[in-house]
Amino acid sequence: MSVLVVGSIGLDTVKTPVEEHADLLGGSASYAAVSASFFTGVNLIGIVGTDFPTRHVEYLKSRRIDIEGLQIVPGKTFRWSGEYEWDLNTRRTRSVELNVFEHFSPHLPKAGAAIPYVLLANIAPALQSHVLDQMSQPRFIIADTMDLWIDIAREPLLALLARVDLLILNDGEARQLTGETSLVKAGGRIRKLGPKYVAIKKGEHGCLLFGESAFFSCGAYPLEDIHDPTGAGDTFAGGLAGYLASLNQSAVTFEQLRKAVVYGSVMASFNVESFSLERLRTLTQQDIEDRYRMFKLMSHFEELR
Amino acid sequence: MSVLVVGSIGLDTVKTPVEEHADLLGGSASYAAVSASFFTGVNLIGIVGTDFPTRHVEYLKSRRIDIEGLQIVPGKTFRWSGEYEWDLNTRRTRSVELNVFEHFSPHLPKAGAAIPYVLLANIAPALQSHVLDQMSQPRFIIADTMDLWIDIAREPLLALLARVDLLILNDGEARQLTGETSLVKAGGRIRKLGPKYVAIKKGEHGCLLFGESAFFSCGAYPLEDIHDPTGAGDTFAGGLAGYLASLNQSAVTFEQLRKAVVYGSVMASFNVESFSLERLRTLTQQDIEDRYRMFKLMSHFEELR
Repeated sequence: MSVLVVGSIGLDTVKTPVEEHADLLGGSASYAAVSASFFTGVNLIGIVGTDFPTRHVEYLKSRRIDIEGLQIVPGKTFRWSGEYEWDLNTRRTRSVELNVFEHFSPHLPKAGAAIPYVLLANIAPALQSHVLDQMSQPRFIIADTMDLWIDIAREPLLALLARVDLLILNDGEARQLTGETSLVKAGGRIRKLGPKYVAIKKGEHGCLLFGESAFFSCGAYPLEDIHDPTGAGDTFAGGLAGYLASLNQSAVTFEQLRKAVVYGSVMASFNVESFSLERLRTLTQQDIEDRYRMFKLMSHFEELR
Repeated sequence: MSVLVVGSIGLDTVKTPVEEHADLLGGSASYAAVSASFFTGVNLIGIVGTDFPTRHVEYLKSRRIDIEGLQIVPGKTFRWSGEYEWDLNTRRTRSVELNVFEHFSPHLPKAGAAIPYVLLANIAPALQSHVLDQMSQPRFIIADTMDLWIDIAREPLLALLARVDLLILNDGEARQLTGETSLVKAGGRIRKLGPKYVAIKKGEHGCLLFGESAFFSCGAYPLEDIHDPTGAGDTFAGGLAGYLASLNQSAVTFEQLRKAVVYGSVMASFNVESFSLERLRTLTQQDIEDRYRMFKLMSHFEELR
């Protein structure tokens, strides 16, 4: 079964201590959709301006991503520019131009509205809810968010959470949302806000998955060098959502979610190896399977007896 | 086979945002020895003053810990007082009184010197090396250290590392020792200094174990409440060393080290549930086995196919 992916699509300019690249394919939905496309069909919902390079459209198409829901409108595409500090952990936004994204109202084509799996990648919670309103038979709803919405759109976010099956957010956001220092407590608190499951991303420390009396701790892949952390969280969410949708089960189990979190971690670990989506352009199914096995190996220890 | 444990033994006064307790049994060797005693026999090497409460000696004996190498000398026992911030992550030392510890020269009784497994818990590297000099047939040498020694005793520490099989340290210390931000790089760098294996503790984020082309990532047990983090690292090291010694193999394998890291994590997760060594006083073998199985469960995910 395909997965519906909605979020931002933009042109990024990214500077790290060693490199700088402009007009990169970026935005939460771009990363998530391409990542998901390694597992299943993807219907992309988003908006770009007429300046959006044809090569980026062609790349999305080459990944068999359905772009019927991609609005191409007069004006300029959303642009983001950011700079990373020497340790690549601290990011500073240099500039944001919303452009056509400012008046984005996601519209689901009929085929897209019938898809039961959705990843609401990071955009304003009100827009995420607007997408849910259009879905005719939602089965598993995954939402990502960010510190900005927790800060300025808490009410719309809380309204969204009541409708979500899995919320994905990072450790700082989980603490910000709940006021809890302990991530274990934060995970429990967020579940009470609606989501049956919560995935808390911890960057280099991996990811925690919380469910009803179930818990999964996934380590991060031990990369020596990270070239560009941009989109790691979106790629994680896309891999996770794409894998789940590919199973096309009537109900998602915690065992399936464990595997989905590992696949998401695999995809994120590849994505940070190069700028923008460059690493995913050359990624193969075999690469993904090999790294999945590495995750298995690095977390393995024997039974008690 | 027994394990030799050398380190500090002291009386701690610990203040957290909710509690304060004085004259607690403390010190790296106390925590490590008691933790190891759940797995194998322990020979404790250390020093206390004549003011050291008999109840603490009796407790060590009740754990079947051999205290032939415990020097009880005229004077006052080493004392440490510390205070934790509201999130229990930041610790401030309020006072340190070295007392009899200032002139500690570890001396191994004949029986102790013949034990092939040793845990050099956190004390000055020169003292740790002095213990190694007295061992007649060392088989597996584990050392712990701290930021202070990296700062003021780097040369003695480097001399020690050349003789060590496994170095245990925390993430901040690994970065401090190597100058590397990436823990993956730091782990590799430390291995080049001598230790065949390196365990980097990350507190709430678990532990990384590095070996020759082998890597293990162990999550931390998801505790909702931590009452006193004091001694968590020492308890980790003690459980790890005790389990390895209990195997009494001619050579330690990476598979055994994986299990040892999990046992260490299990012991640390119990220890922080109460003040000082209080939680370990009531701990049972069944508790340890149950939590080991929880670690297995929380890190489990299915094979690719």
